[in-house]
Amino acid sequence: MLRIIVAIDRHNQYPQLMAGRPTIRDVAELAGVHPGTASRALDPRLEGRISAPTAERVRLAARRLGYVADPVARQLRVRRSAVIGVIVPDLANPVFPPVVQGIEDALAEAGYVALVANTGNDPGRERDRVTALQGRRCDGYIVASATLDGTTIGRLTAAAEPVVLVNRETGDPGLPAVSSDDRAGVQAAMAHLAGLGHRVIAHITGPPNLSVVRTRAEAFRSSAERLGLDPGLLVLRHGPALTASCAQEAALAVLAEVPAITAILAGNDLMALGCYAAAQQAGRPCPASLSIVGYNDMPFVEWWRPALTTVRIPQYEIGQEAARLLLEQLGSGGHGPAKQILLPTSLTLRSSTGPPPA
Amino acid sequence: MLRIIVAIDRHNQYPQLMAGRPTIRDVAELAGVHPGTASRALDPRLEGRISAPTAERVRLAARRLGYVADPVARQLRVRRSAVIGVIVPDLANPVFPPVVQGIEDALAEAGYVALVANTGNDPGRERDRVTALQGRRCDGYIVASATLDGTTIGRLTAAAEPVVLVNRETGDPGLPAVSSDDRAGVQAAMAHLAGLGHRVIAHITGPPNLSVVRTRAEAFRSSAERLGLDPGLLVLRHGPALTASCAQEAALAVLAEVPAITAILAGNDLMALGCYAAAQQAGRPCPASLSIVGYNDMPFVEWWRPALTTVRIPQYEIGQEAARLLLEQLGSGGHGPAKQILLPTSLTLRSSTGPPPA
Repeated sequence: MLRIIVAIDRHNQYPQLMAGRPTIRDVAELAGVHPGTASRALDPRLEGRISAPTAERVRLAARRLGYVADPVARQLRVRRSAVIGVIVPDLANPVFPPVVQGIEDALAEAGYVALVANTGNDPGRERDRVTALQGRRCDGYIVASATLDGTTIGRLTAAAEPVVLVNRETGDPGLPAVSSDDRAGVQAAMAHLAGLGHRVIAHITGPPNLSVVRTRAEAFRSSAERLGLDPGLLVLRHGPALTASCAQEAALAVLAEVPAITAILAGNDLMALGCYAAAQQAGRPCPASLSIVGYNDMPFVEWWRPALTTVRIPQYEIGQEAARLLLEQLGSGGHGPAKQILLPTSLTLRSSTGPPPA
Repeated sequence: MLRIIVAIDRHNQYPQLMAGRPTIRDVAELAGVHPGTASRALDPRLEGRISAPTAERVRLAARRLGYVADPVARQLRVRRSAVIGVIVPDLANPVFPPVVQGIEDALAEAGYVALVANTGNDPGRERDRVTALQGRRCDGYIVASATLDGTTIGRLTAAAEPVVLVNRETGDPGLPAVSSDDRAGVQAAMAHLAGLGHRVIAHITGPPNLSVVRTRAEAFRSSAERLGLDPGLLVLRHGPALTASCAQEAALAVLAEVPAITAILAGNDLMALGCYAAAQQAGRPCPASLSIVGYNDMPFVEWWRPALTTVRIPQYEIGQEAARLLLEQLGSGGHGPAKQILLPTSLTLRSSTGPPPA
């Protein structure tokens, strides 16, 4: 939408610019960047906020075309901050604020700011919030709330809006996406549990329309197989949401049905917390009687009782990479390749895991 | 900005509406609500999203005026979701997501959505984000990042934007605000510590340009006096930010300077966590050697080791009340009284406090 506004400025407000004088869009086109990027690259007040090679390419293009900035038009443009809409599924899940921080920091380097919409994992709310953002001239979107069966992403891409997915995917390889290596993460957690001697292991997770849930559940089965564990002793349980209360309910049921379970791999850290509560209720102290592994390594879990053993995903870096990918898309006018970036995971060992009871 | 757009619709797109036919604004005026609220109250697709008494008042006004909705104009209006900008100082502080949830839920009842901007406690970022929101047709603002010396609120009110402050205040009684009773909260915490036998108590908190910091620090002194504690034994230390790392640094310094300290009242729960870390480093186990009290009772602190004794502020309700206050302002065209709402606090006793060492 930035482009339309610039066009209005030129046609209505500054008709003299029409008489063959090069515009910032001409400069942007020659430099191969977004007009907003070109404008910022030529603004001495914003020095250092555009990468040096890009700024140099824009200055070169401006010199070649004999471009002279119109200070009034510039002021109009610069007053309109460049905005990216960030759509998160659950702000109450502490894993998302570090992702948003990574996005914000990477955007700030290029002079962009983020506006965050929280969907609360509710398709109706998601629709309302995306409509709100679409009506507000966002230059692009970073979406952390993608589902394998949702319609939001389709609405954005149908409107030709630049979109980058973060953490959760739609299954469409045509969209740029940043996620973490969940297969390796689950494999490390399962190897740790098997190494401690656990054989009857449950995976308590969220709904299978989330890519992270599906990938981690598949990895739960495949890594157990690779580790030589008896697949008949594995228990997989999907709850309706990736929350502590859903995990607590599911864990209580599973522990009652299969008391031989000695370890639980939770779908995320909030679910691990629900498993802590269930273990207390079921009289199965963690880790003496029941080992619990989380996923994400969100802030403050090292202070929990017991401190949580969990698979670490690089939350801040995931956000940074997603923002950079979107800026690349904006710079290429949406013609860049749809990169899929996979960041490494690691297992953080703390106090919630130990050998199974004798 | 909604009003301007409606006016453009009427003058340019739908000139027939000018010929004495009642408009949604006339209905809204008669019913005493915002035009957006009136529009939604009359939309059968949005039934149940406006409170029943309000919807009834709007329907009555429409009948009296003989108002007939123009479906094309309505579609244009309904496609533009009503948006409130929410400005938070630190999304990484887990106390803010529940406040945002309260805001979102109360706004959703009236058909509004929230877009969240995170300032990271940085005045430059705050300026950028407020500019971004202002350029994006927000109907009003809920600001949780107010400082006693900041300029943001002034920029919003100078632009005649409806603003409600939440949690933090500017010291200007002319602005509607929702906060919690910090004097009573600190008094309860100090009475608890004095009752356990603590006499040398430190208050480690953030910068005094935040209203919550100033109010709690004043209450620290005044409640000690009321409890008959020797003011010469109190230690007050301001850190540069309300964060765990600032608290850790300040607590280490204070414990080295005044080893007789047996209890710390932290400026918030994140600072309490920094005090936990400092207590570990200083060989002062909590609570056996050092009692620590937090402030906020943010999510998950009951799972910390030790579980945190803290002053509870009603986070979700603070958000709800702020949203309702803003909706009232919008309904009254900004002519309503600038209410100041103070919600009650309470002390939640857990395991981080105990009697001082003998």
